[in-house]
Amino acid sequence: MPEAGPHPDRLFPSDPLQRRLARELYGHVRDLPLICPHGHVDPALMAHNKPFGNPAELLVVPDHYVLRMLYSRGVALEDLGVPSRDGAPVEGDPRAIWRRLAEHWHLFRGTPSRLWLEQELHEVFGVTTRLSAATADEVYDQLEDCLGRDAFLPRALFDRFNIEFLATTESPLDSLEHHRAIRDSDWAGNVVTTFRPDDVVDMERHDWASAVGRLGEVTGCDTATYGGYLDALRSRRAFFASNGATATDHGHPTAATLDLDGADAARLFEAGLRGRADAAAAERFRAHMLTEFARMSCEDGLVMQLHPGSLRDHNPRVLARFGPDMGADIPMPTDYVRALRPLLNRFGNEPRLTLVVFTLDESAYARELAPLAGHYPAMVLGPAWWFHDSPEGMRRFRELTTETAGFYNTVGFNDDTRAFPSIAARHDVARRVDCAFLARLVAEHRLPLEEAAETAVDLAYRLPKRTYRIGDGTVA
Amino acid sequence: MPEAGPHPDRLFPSDPLQRRLARELYGHVRDLPLICPHGHVDPALMAHNKPFGNPAELLVVPDHYVLRMLYSRGVALEDLGVPSRDGAPVEGDPRAIWRRLAEHWHLFRGTPSRLWLEQELHEVFGVTTRLSAATADEVYDQLEDCLGRDAFLPRALFDRFNIEFLATTESPLDSLEHHRAIRDSDWAGNVVTTFRPDDVVDMERHDWASAVGRLGEVTGCDTATYGGYLDALRSRRAFFASNGATATDHGHPTAATLDLDGADAARLFEAGLRGRADAAAAERFRAHMLTEFARMSCEDGLVMQLHPGSLRDHNPRVLARFGPDMGADIPMPTDYVRALRPLLNRFGNEPRLTLVVFTLDESAYARELAPLAGHYPAMVLGPAWWFHDSPEGMRRFRELTTETAGFYNTVGFNDDTRAFPSIAARHDVARRVDCAFLARLVAEHRLPLEEAAETAVDLAYRLPKRTYRIGDGTVA
Amino acid sequence: MPEAGPHPDRLFPSDPLQRRLARELYGHVRDLPLICPHGHVDPALMAHNKPFGNPAELLVVPDHYVLRMLYSRGVALEDLGVPSRDGAPVEGDPRAIWRRLAEHWHLFRGTPSRLWLEQELHEVFGVTTRLSAATADEVYDQLEDCLGRDAFLPRALFDRFNIEFLATTESPLDSLEHHRAIRDSDWAGNVVTTFRPDDVVDMERHDWASAVGRLGEVTGCDTATYGGYLDALRSRRAFFASNGATATDHGHPTAATLDLDGADAARLFEAGLRGRADAAAAERFRAHMLTEFARMSCEDGLVMQLHPGSLRDHNPRVLARFGPDMGADIPMPTDYVRALRPLLNRFGNEPRLTLVVFTLDESAYARELAPLAGHYPAMVLGPAWWFHDSPEGMRRFRELTTETAGFYNTVGFNDDTRAFPSIAARHDVARRVDCAFLARLVAEHRLPLEEAAETAVDLAYRLPKRTYRIGDGTVA
Repeated sequence: MPEAGPHPDRLFPSDPLQRRLARELYGHVRDLPLICPHGHVDPALMAHNKPFGNPAELLVVPDHYVLRMLYSRGVALEDLGVPSRDGAPVEGDPRAIWRRLAEHWHLFRGTPSRLWLEQELHEVFGVTTRLSAATADEVYDQLEDCLGRDAFLPRALFDRFNIEFLATTESPLDSLEHHRAIRDSDWAGNVVTTFRPDDVVDMERHDWASAVGRLGEVTGCDTATYGGYLDALRSRRAFFASNGATATDHGHPTAATLDLDGADAARLFEAGLRGRADAAAAERFRAHMLTEFARMSCEDGLVMQLHPGSLRDHNPRVLARFGPDMGADIPMPTDYVRALRPLLNRFGNEPRLTLVVFTLDESAYARELAPLAGHYPAMVLGPAWWFHDSPEGMRRFRELTTETAGFYNTVGFNDDTRAFPSIAARHDVARRVDCAFLARLVAEHRLPLEEAAETAVDLAYRLPKRTYRIGDGTVA
Repeated sequence: MPEAGPHPDRLFPSDPLQRRLARELYGHVRDLPLICPHGHVDPALMAHNKPFGNPAELLVVPDHYVLRMLYSRGVALEDLGVPSRDGAPVEGDPRAIWRRLAEHWHLFRGTPSRLWLEQELHEVFGVTTRLSAATADEVYDQLEDCLGRDAFLPRALFDRFNIEFLATTESPLDSLEHHRAIRDSDWAGNVVTTFRPDDVVDMERHDWASAVGRLGEVTGCDTATYGGYLDALRSRRAFFASNGATATDHGHPTAATLDLDGADAARLFEAGLRGRADAAAAERFRAHMLTEFARMSCEDGLVMQLHPGSLRDHNPRVLARFGPDMGADIPMPTDYVRALRPLLNRFGNEPRLTLVVFTLDESAYARELAPLAGHYPAMVLGPAWWFHDSPEGMRRFRELTTETAGFYNTVGFNDDTRAFPSIAARHDVARRVDCAFLARLVAEHRLPLEEAAETAVDLAYRLPKRTYRIGDGTVA
Repeated sequence: MPEAGPHPDRLFPSDPLQRRLARELYGHVRDLPLICPHGHVDPALMAHNKPFGNPAELLVVPDHYVLRMLYSRGVALEDLGVPSRDGAPVEGDPRAIWRRLAEHWHLFRGTPSRLWLEQELHEVFGVTTRLSAATADEVYDQLEDCLGRDAFLPRALFDRFNIEFLATTESPLDSLEHHRAIRDSDWAGNVVTTFRPDDVVDMERHDWASAVGRLGEVTGCDTATYGGYLDALRSRRAFFASNGATATDHGHPTAATLDLDGADAARLFEAGLRGRADAAAAERFRAHMLTEFARMSCEDGLVMQLHPGSLRDHNPRVLARFGPDMGADIPMPTDYVRALRPLLNRFGNEPRLTLVVFTLDESAYARELAPLAGHYPAMVLGPAWWFHDSPEGMRRFRELTTETAGFYNTVGFNDDTRAFPSIAARHDVARRVDCAFLARLVAEHRLPLEEAAETAVDLAYRLPKRTYRIGDGTVA
């Protein structure tokens, strides 16, 4: 183990008994295949299997965690090579971008970005030098050298990471050509899509009506009517499922659901198409559609994921200049108890439905989410998400949900990332943190070691397979 | 200590210094008598002293924590023997029900239900086998054997548990015949009632008006008028107090209080009787009555308890089929700062009033509840409640309230249970968790050991006696 | 180390590895000069350098943390010597007041008040006896003896505490005569003011209009017009800056900001002067003025601090009898995401602005504040505030903010106190807690020791200097 590499005991408690137990538990899960049922990797990566670009393009420019932290301490996004919408010139030298990251590396002390990136540098690229302004060039050179080699092509990394299942996320309008190309190739990697219909559901998107029109073209359904629109959605779900999808995903500003009657829903839909739906109508339509999607899931068996609670693009100046997803999305307090009631009352008792609910509002873990998941057969809890996908965040998730919902109303880890080369590091952090939590339960005589070991394997491998209906996952 | 029994150091920190200190502190409280000032044991149990039923009837069917977890992972309530409202057949074989629990025992890993049940099996029933599908029958047989013996009669367990004081909870309409029977018996157990008037206060209950009518009959007061209604409540409080009650209890959807003038309150009351009170009027009447009850407490000295913040019967299908209290009550965000202000402004400075406030919304601990209890002489904090009556929940309660409210604005433990045989286990868990918290303060040199020991005894024994005005409790 | 003194390892984790690391980190910061950029010390103390009064007047009567706890457990404020507004007699014997504190000392177990006071007694006054009812007089005598000696004069303590920078807080109407007197004296202590304009901004204060009138007199501006009012504020800011101020401070009930056009703001202002502004108008005006002050900060470089979220004077009986600031201020849930948006959209991307945001609502740390500070260049997080200025509160602050905002979007410690002799103890507690947090990161191999040491020094010394633009603070 070279000096600068991540320590083999990282993220384990320092209490000697807990550390010994965590090590033992981690030994059971370290080498298990990765199940990645929710993420945003570009399937073209695996379809084309072309080399990754330069280190800045790989590790800095597309990472909104990294961009937001650097921006918050005064580094201009232009100087990080983020393309501007108006085409104004931005930094074009990837080495200069990399140096800026290295010069500001202290900003990331105590953050998951640092954990992920250090582990990635060491375990994927073999970097043994600690990153700093002084070593920026040396590390850059080593990365650049790697990126030119076959062992660092996307498929090679996929195999090396021991990924058993990788789900990407696509719009119903997507042709899934990359997934088809992967399946038609001689490569055995299991890469499937996820049905994410936000662009054809959210009337507040400026291009919603045209997206609905395209949905009609793609499916041959008459999406000028609400009935045709529902048919079109069912048709695309079937197409996605036939391409391997096992799940849908819904990113909504709130967790609101409604169970309108068909005529009311149709009126909202038609008002939207005529440009007469205000924000409240759009919210009602989104809310109703969640219940419609739950109904469809009961029929076609696709697992339903709900990601609510982010106020997108809080900073209009950044949005105007650089577009969305530049680190300016901010969580809001999110109600689940009243919001989910219409959907749960209708379908929450259905064994056929699996509704995975996420949150950015940790105050809901113990107060609302664990009690709901600990009651309704259909509802389970997604892992600590986004800002909370971090050691402290994952620890809080377990501390705040386990006593009411147990481990088996949770679904294991989602890496939820577009940063493909970081996937192994992200899963490793999650496995370590879960083992640390279980080690504390064992050390405090709250759980026998052998049951903790079984639970660790369930969380890392069997639960995500069972929940997302992947293969024949059996559990506990 | 047989292999499968709970470990003597369970729930203590694994850090050797903290563990040694926790053991020492726990030594001071382990054998103290149990003070149970708030709970829901059926007084008929102690009045009749008949044997408990079979293991399923004792440990599964009436435990909403157990039912909700099993239901959440797909076990039908019918298969757990829960009686259906329409009389449709449900599982009648207690051994089959017990096996279902055992087969799903992994669901309870990391939950307080498991801690309580394991300790109960071992310490009450002497079970030394770990529960699993394989051992279900063996454990069942041992339990069944115990339940037939005199040593497991309710009064024998009461004495064995070393219960010094047990409060049950009754409606003002209750005759308290079981309490009278206990007092008139030759058994010395101290079992008293608690005045819980929700059924004659909450206009949203379908039978509120008839309950108010019965209140008139029971007391001879004219409860068709607001003045007579108040008189009737005072009369029943006096009756309850003469039967040993030292406290009242109020379960409300919110913590709202109001201090209306008499004429306004009378108008609400009369509108309610005429069936003309809407939800807002019912909420205003409940809110006002809390202030009326505080006034009565200032007069008669009954300690007042407020349990707000649960949305009852979130799942209408379960309610329709099985009735209330089947695990579908879900906490909601709860305001205390503005809600309690009318009552506290009126009576919060009165030394005669003790108002014990509980919460299901932990975000209020440090933000609202500890600051309020750390200011108003009348207000103190009830212990971690319901979903938070758990090791992590009780730890958070201390971490989040102590620095602002101290230990002496809290009231010690409430078991709050109807599961009589679990009472000793529940108190033991609470004592262990408080000792673990105090051990950390000692280990970090924040509190001298001898003061921590005194505090441990106060929390376990003297504070509940003092707060609930039981015997001559002196403290610190 | 005398027996009763604070332990040298206090507040460090008891895990041996973490304790050793915490000790080492603390060694780097223990003796650093104190930077006190936000507090409420009376500058007259340093201007006049007269002896402090008696022990009760120094340590009990002015400390709202102490008063509130004693009051909450039944000690009358009259018996603690708090002057009544109507001049009714209160306890006049400081020794009797001191004894009341000592008799109730157990109430403070586990609170920061106890930590601060014990450390103050020991390290400032050399008290080696543990406080109790039995030792109250002995401790009192020793304190009284100290207070008569030159070594305990305010300036002597200032020098002994190694205070490098102390900011007080004054209204724009203040003449700053004490600050001038300090500067004109032969004493070298660096004591500056902070611009706190709440009394000329908040229309809900009964004397707002007259304060605005006096603002006009002081500046020679026509504060009967909105334009003149803004000019007057600019003029006083310049005056404060010329007297050393580097910051402004804003205590608002909410974090609401607005960016009105000038005509709308002028209308609100004039309605206020005519007594026609209701609560909503007052809130809008306060909200708008925050954005105006941000604009002024962009111009004059004063750092802007926002302290929102306290409901002042919750207890009208205490207010009527004893006035404000007697321990009856209670935190409320506080929104930041929508509330700060108008200000941040206008000035959040300005490198010239530093906006330090505080909270009393810890649920906002991870959900709203860390994401906002981790994105906007202008915004940083103030330390754990008021009720949360405590070991557990500071630990939660780091655990909940670091992973999203890092250490370098925080600003180090504020003692925020009027209790001058407690300042050294307060900084020491904060330094210990930060070192304990860093020690855990090191022990869990999440941060190398040498980077943790650099971070500890940054948090204790360099970050507050840099953030508050004191001297030439360089960092990391």
